[in-house]
Order: sequence, then C-alpha cells, then structure tokens
Amino acid sequence: MREAEFLQTLHFNSLRLADGSLVNMSVPIVLAIDDAQKRAIGDRRKVALVDPNTNKPIAILSDMEIYHHNKEERIARTWGTTAPGLPYVEEAITNAGNWLIGGDLEVIEPIKYNDGLDQYRLSPAQLREEFSRRKADAVFAFQLRNPVHNGHALLMTDTRRRLLKMGYKNPILLLHPLGGYTKADDVPLCWRMKQHEKVLEDGVLNPETTVISIFPSPMHYAGPTEVQWHAKARINAGANFYIVGRDPAGMSHPVEKRDLYDADHGKKVLSMAPGLERLNILPFKVAAYDKKQRKMNFFEPSRKDDFLFISGTKMRTLARNRENPPDGFMCPSGWEVLVKYYDNLAPGHKVRETVPA
Amino acid sequence: MREAEFLQTLHFNSLRLADGSLVNMSVPIVLAIDDAQKRAIGDRRKVALVDPNTNKPIAILSDMEIYHHNKEERIARTWGTTAPGLPYVEEAITNAGNWLIGGDLEVIEPIKYNDGLDQYRLSPAQLREEFSRRKADAVFAFQLRNPVHNGHALLMTDTRRRLLKMGYKNPILLLHPLGGYTKADDVPLCWRMKQHEKVLEDGVLNPETTVISIFPSPMHYAGPTEVQWHAKARINAGANFYIVGRDPAGMSHPVEKRDLYDADHGKKVLSMAPGLERLNILPFKVAAYDKKQRKMNFFEPSRKDDFLFISGTKMRTLARNRENPPDGFMCPSGWEVLVKYYDNLAPGHKVRETVPA
Repeated sequence: MREAEFLQTLHFNSLRLADGSLVNMSVPIVLAIDDAQKRAIGDRRKVALVDPNTNKPIAILSDMEIYHHNKEERIARTWGTTAPGLPYVEEAITNAGNWLIGGDLEVIEPIKYNDGLDQYRLSPAQLREEFSRRKADAVFAFQLRNPVHNGHALLMTDTRRRLLKMGYKNPILLLHPLGGYTKADDVPLCWRMKQHEKVLEDGVLNPETTVISIFPSPMHYAGPTEVQWHAKARINAGANFYIVGRDPAGMSHPVEKRDLYDADHGKKVLSMAPGLERLNILPFKVAAYDKKQRKMNFFEPSRKDDFLFISGTKMRTLARNRENPPDGFMCPSGWEVLVKYYDNLAPGHKVRETVPA
Repeated sequence: MREAEFLQTLHFNSLRLADGSLVNMSVPIVLAIDDAQKRAIGDRRKVALVDPNTNKPIAILSDMEIYHHNKEERIARTWGTTAPGLPYVEEAITNAGNWLIGGDLEVIEPIKYNDGLDQYRLSPAQLREEFSRRKADAVFAFQLRNPVHNGHALLMTDTRRRLLKMGYKNPILLLHPLGGYTKADDVPLCWRMKQHEKVLEDGVLNPETTVISIFPSPMHYAGPTEVQWHAKARINAGANFYIVGRDPAGMSHPVEKRDLYDADHGKKVLSMAPGLERLNILPFKVAAYDKKQRKMNFFEPSRKDDFLFISGTKMRTLARNRENPPDGFMCPSGWEVLVKYYDNLAPGHKVRETVPA
C-alpha cells in the first residue's frame, strides 16, 4: 500500500477508487523496512522482493513510495487498544522497521509454499471459476481457524438448507480456513487441513457442495476491524453470503479481565461497513452439545440445562490430554487428527494457553 | 449518538443516511452516564437533560439507548494512541461514566451561556442566513483557538484575493474561534474574543467581509480525525472553502519526544474523507516574521535567514513576560489584550506549559 491507501484504511476502513466508488479495506497490507534497507534503496524507483528461503525474486515493486511507519497509531486504529500482548502485533509489527514501502506490485509467478498444501491455495479468480464450473447460484463463505466440529457442520448444512428454501437451486459452501499466522495455541494449518479432509471424507460436510481452499491471510485478532477484511476477501473470491459468529476475530483483552471487543460489535460494524452494502450477512446461530439428543444442536434457551458449551480452549485441552469429547461432538476420524497433533508436540513444546479465544 | 452512530464514527469516520449517502462524522458526540444514573433511569424511555448551574431542563432525550462506554477503544480509535496526558481525554473521558446514552434530542430553547458572548454564538442556520444576507458567493472558513496575529490575517486576506481572482465577486470570511474546552495553556475564549474584536476594529481584518462567530465545540487535539469535524461543521454552517494548516489540531505526543501526528496527515486525510468530497481545501501557506520588511510575510525558502518563526508557545511566553513581539507581528491593541490577560493571571495561577502546540 502507498500512504494514501494506508491512511484511508486506518481512518475510513475503505478506499475511494478513481470512479468515486468505495471498496472496503479495513486492515493495512503493508511491507515494513528498516533504516538500513531504506538507505540501501536510496533513490531507486524499483525493488525486487526476494523469497528469504530460496533467495529467488518473487515480485517487483515499482513506482515506489517510502513513508513513516507510525506503529503506535497503526495499532491503536486497527485494534482499538495499544495494550501489550496482541498476538499479531508482537509477531509482525512491534519489531518491524520504521518505514513502510508501497507501490505497483507485479508478482512474477504464483506464490508456492511447497508445504504439500499448494493444491488448496486457489486464487480469488480460480475460486470464482470453480463456482461457475459447479454452476453455483449462491456461494456462502465460512471463515475458520479451528478444527471443524459438528456444531460448525450443523451451521453450514443448515445455511444451505435455508438458501435452498429461499429459492436458490445450488448453493455452494466455501470452506475457507485461514492459512497465515495464528497464535501459538491455535492448531497449525497442516493439522487443521488433515482434520478438514476427514470431515469431508466422512461426509459430515458434503464434498459435492463444498469447495475447500486456504485463505492466505494472517490472523490479526482485530475483531470488528478484521471481520470486514474476512468478508471482503470472500466477496472478492465469489461469495455473496457470509456467515458471522459471535465476537468474530475477537479474543480476551491481553491485559484486562474482559473480552477485547463487545461480542455484538463485529456483526454490527460489518452490517454498516462502507463498500460492503451488497453483502448478505448470515448471523451465526449458536450451537452446543445437546446432552439429551447426544449431538450438536442449535441452542434452545427454553431447555438450557440440556446443553453443554465446549469452547475452542476446552476442545484443545481435551485433545491434548487424550480425553474424548462427548459422542457426536466431532467425527471420530477428525478427532484422531487432533489427538495425533498434540501427541506429536514434544512435552517441551507444549503450547502456551495464554490467549484463549 | 446511539450505538450504531458511535460505531460508524469510530470505525468509518462517517455515517450512512437512510438514502444510502454518507455524511462525515469523525468524533463521537456522546453523553456518558455512570452506573448510578443508569440504575436511576431504569426502563424509562425519556430523560430530561438539566443545566447543572440553573437546575433547569434544557433538552429532552427520548427513544433512548444506553450502551457500553468502552473508553479505551474510543480513545485509541479517535486519537491513534492511548498514552496518558491527552488533554481532552483527561478532561472529558477518563473519569466519565461507563455507559453512553443516546436518542432523539429535542432542545427546549437555544442554549445560552450568559457569559456576555452569546451574541457571537450563531447557529449553522443563522450563519447561512447571514451569508445570504451579505450576498456571499463564496464562504471561506478559518478555524482558530489562538489570538489572531498578522500572519493569520495575511493568510485570510490573501485567500480572499485568490477567491476574487478565481472569479468570485463577494467572498466572505467565517472567522470561527473554537469556544469549548481548550487545554490549560491556551488563551481562554473571553480574552481571545476581546483580541479578535481589536483585530476587526483596527481593520487588520475587514469587518465588511468577515463574519465572526463562536464554534461551540470542545478542542480534542485529535489531529487528522478532528480536522474532519472542524471542516464538516463549517460546511454545515455554509462554508465551501476551508483553510487547512500544517498539523491541524495536532500537538506534541504526551509521552514521547515527537509530534503526535505527521504534519501532513491532517490535510491528506481531509482530502480523502468520506462525505467531504465537495469540500474545497485551501492549503495554509506558511507565514513568518520577515525581518527585512518588518512584517509578517509568506515564507520564502530562498531567503530563509530573513524570517523569524514565532510559535504559539513563543507568543504566549512573550506576552506573559510583558515583552513585545517584533513590530508588525500583531496589531498593538490586540497585543495589549494578551498582556492584560497574563497580568490578570495571579502568579499562583500561572498556566502550565506542558503540552505546547
């Protein structure tokens, strides 16, 4: 991003295009450089971006602009706090350089990660192509960074049912797990993908009506600001319905004993966001384990004692301790993947449980 | 403001109206209440707002909404920092209640301050009426919270000259000093108004082409976020040209040794702000004291040693110490007002000089 885009992102969560229309853009996509890199670039108008692993150039940035990286302001306006302990801030901003570089980006060839998962990395254009190949007349997207349990699956199959009832003939689910940085206690992408494969193999989700692909973004844990990015990116990829949960991209306040964001703000902010007027938001119905019916079910307040809430933190703790969740919480083959993941973590590498979410 | 407006203000600096159009709104206009007040209101749908001095009701708030006042998030998203020492935050937010109350506001009768300055408090409608009474074909607004020196005056008369050159027949200046809260080392409103009166009496500004009125807003010192509010409010009052200086509404970082905002961001953000597309921004040309010509003049880098920069802080220090600024810096009768103000400050009440701006 150049500075004009960076400022619009921070202040307005949207960019004005040359034709006067607004597109949503709520998190800056920027590249930081340090003083030495800035000096090395000097007056040059073009730089190559090089893969640090292979040392090969992967993109050319031209007609560049170098501007000040005000980290405090970036953090405050993106997260609504500057408290220490925000995972993405510590990962990518705190120690980043004091300058940002932006310009026209020309990617030399499609980026490969060579981690055995590249076949799942479809570009927005490839996804749109896949949806039209499948003759989808509605695409509903589900953002996730956790293993799929049967509550998620219920929500997704129920969404398809509702779309059919609305008159759509062939609604397709975009199951779009986040593939970039996640915090230390989240399950790594490669294990989540194995788990998602099992969920599809076991028919918990129907492969005929599901497209699974990796969303390459890092997780910001920036609540109402980030949920706009999550939705906008899926619209770009062809989705027209977006499922939004309680407190999307939220987490506990890193310092105070409370949630960082109001649980309803994500949905409210998304529904009012500039550039997302045509998005159809599908509110996430709360699912919980129904002890009577021994399966995941939509929560009914009238018989609330029949329900058991199993949080992501609780699920991870069970799998780590090789305990089984109640029958019907997750397909057994998917659960096995999780148990195997935690088994593979050497005891010395046990994950911190610092930021439950 | 209700919560939907509060959230749009914080996240988007603009509100979407029922017809789909956007209006700019960058600082929340909210009323905080504490837990006891919230309990006292209970389920009532209407409250009266009472003047604490006279105990008389001044407005009715109906169809109310009470929602959580997340102060940290409000501060971070408005100022781009949560550092302690932001003047307006300490004045109005830190100790405010944990709830915000919003609704339909019906003001019973025009607010009077009874401070001898009410004749200067024209509403936006009254200002628009005054401009049409004067048959203005262009209105240019100047926001200020400082005494007017001859550099300001040069800028304003030069702006009028430029507008005449552009073909306007009768450009009118809206001299619009800020009348709400300012930080301790700023000159209080009543003294500034006395000073502005002298500037008009002495003909430094032409009363025929100037409308002076008090802008009732408090000063937020919120840089690029606040400058949008300053401009939007003046458009509402009939202005179509807005003069923007370097680092508008900026100040030093309250904790770090740097300016809080990049000096160019105010102008850049204003030029891209949603809802302000039709605003004509007039960049502030830098004026300084020209030692050769013994008057305020537009700065010329080619003969920079001829110029002396006299900051607001420097000006206040001179007046406080009964020293005279160079001839031609300010009209003598206006300067006398400043000296009198500082004389009237008992030594025990000498103002802090903590946040130079």
